[in-house]
Amino acid sequence: MRQSESHMSEPGLPTVFLVGAGPGDPELLTLKALRLLREAEVVVYDRLISQDILDLIPTGTARIYAGKASGAHSLPQDETNELLVKLARTGHRVVRLKGGDPLVFGRGSEEALHLARHGVACEVVPGVTAAAGCAASAGIPLTHRGLATSVRFVTGHCCAGRPLDLNWQSLADPQTTLVVYMGLAHISEIACRLIEAGLPADTPAAAVANGTLNDERLVVATLATLADQVQLASFPAPVLFIIGRVIEVLEDLRVCRRSSPSSAGDPIERAQNA
Amino acid sequence: MRQSESHMSEPGLPTVFLVGAGPGDPELLTLKALRLLREAEVVVYDRLISQDILDLIPTGTARIYAGKASGAHSLPQDETNELLVKLARTGHRVVRLKGGDPLVFGRGSEEALHLARHGVACEVVPGVTAAAGCAASAGIPLTHRGLATSVRFVTGHCCAGRPLDLNWQSLADPQTTLVVYMGLAHISEIACRLIEAGLPADTPAAAVANGTLNDERLVVATLATLADQVQLASFPAPVLFIIGRVIEVLEDLRVCRRSSPSSAGDPIERAQNA
Repeated sequence: MRQSESHMSEPGLPTVFLVGAGPGDPELLTLKALRLLREAEVVVYDRLISQDILDLIPTGTARIYAGKASGAHSLPQDETNELLVKLARTGHRVVRLKGGDPLVFGRGSEEALHLARHGVACEVVPGVTAAAGCAASAGIPLTHRGLATSVRFVTGHCCAGRPLDLNWQSLADPQTTLVVYMGLAHISEIACRLIEAGLPADTPAAAVANGTLNDERLVVATLATLADQVQLASFPAPVLFIIGRVIEVLEDLRVCRRSSPSSAGDPIERAQNA
Repeated sequence: MRQSESHMSEPGLPTVFLVGAGPGDPELLTLKALRLLREAEVVVYDRLISQDILDLIPTGTARIYAGKASGAHSLPQDETNELLVKLARTGHRVVRLKGGDPLVFGRGSEEALHLARHGVACEVVPGVTAAAGCAASAGIPLTHRGLATSVRFVTGHCCAGRPLDLNWQSLADPQTTLVVYMGLAHISEIACRLIEAGLPADTPAAAVANGTLNDERLVVATLATLADQVQLASFPAPVLFIIGRVIEVLEDLRVCRRSSPSSAGDPIERAQNA
């Protein structure tokens, strides 16, 4: 989905840029994302785009909200697809701005396919995915020698009324860090299923709300207690869950901090007790 | 690993920033990475940092190469760890610049732990991981409804002489996109083991060399033919492998392009035939 693909579209039509906005902190935008936002005539953006990022869009650039809240779609996906085609075919320079990375649970590829089928070129600009953003911010590696040889991203979201369609046996791998996107509504079921499939109930587990933003909150628990802890903390969506032994690194970092001269103000512990 | 953790270190010592440089294209640096590179006094960088990114470091900033080529470590990890501590304890503003994201197969957490154990605060700045960068650039989604409900990153690298220690049964999941980092030396074994573990031999598989850079190259094959195709193409490291049905989306995008007026110059097909 390269820049040069613009030559593949109908001549004269501008390329639509599907741009990852990263995990929330506007400083985690890529240089390319910022440049494209400044060059765009229209920005079509999702619900999870923070106000600080929207503030980077120049005055005079049209903004169209295509956000989706779970179960309450502002624009159905079909209409978003059609809108992007229409805007490009009327000659507008369009940035489609999506939270995180467009190709990780972002439906970016569905939009790219729809555009291609209608003769509109599209370039995908990757972004920092929520897992990387929250991991860095919380102090939890996604892989770590001796603790996790791989990392796996799954979505805990499912269409209204349908059961979660995940391969629990494959997911219950103690050597793999499991990251659950959009899982707030189903975290209790997810944790139960993983334990039933053999993942130890005392596997460390963390939840990060508003990751990388000023009001980030973190809960550290075990797989068995995660759902209750998150409910007690009244975490708002979006919440990212990280499950696995890599969380032991966070504990080790804390021990180091406690033995240092000025550990009283640990923001992570404050968040946990909030 | 937040900014405010600088308060947890010994008073007066600067925070060391472990910064992800992204997949190679300098425009895929984050705004924060660029700011920190401009503010640093010393940049300690890895082998995979492209020249275009090094060119963004101001003249007058010290640069220290701590790169590792497989089997030929320029600085052993222990020495890199010690160097970071020494630089911070002598009051230098240090950026430790790592390819991709520091917490995905980057040993970032090992360096963070070492710094913490020596009273030096550290903040991790996430980056666009190679999987996201190569996926966007090649036109292959990491997840796609109906084709992959999850994505998994593994490393194909192993210490000299030791066998690959991966859970093949768990990895051979046709519903999951498998991304192999640092797997060039072992891709033949990896493909064989996945097929033995039940992943269909005709599962689509792709290899991306120099992802997101001007000399990016792409091979699309099947799990059965991947190793031979990559060898025929004489791909240089680093190569990222993407295995799974999501590659069908790339094929669909190509079909759309072929039916468009000016498909002769498809850069992806050129790369495949190179």
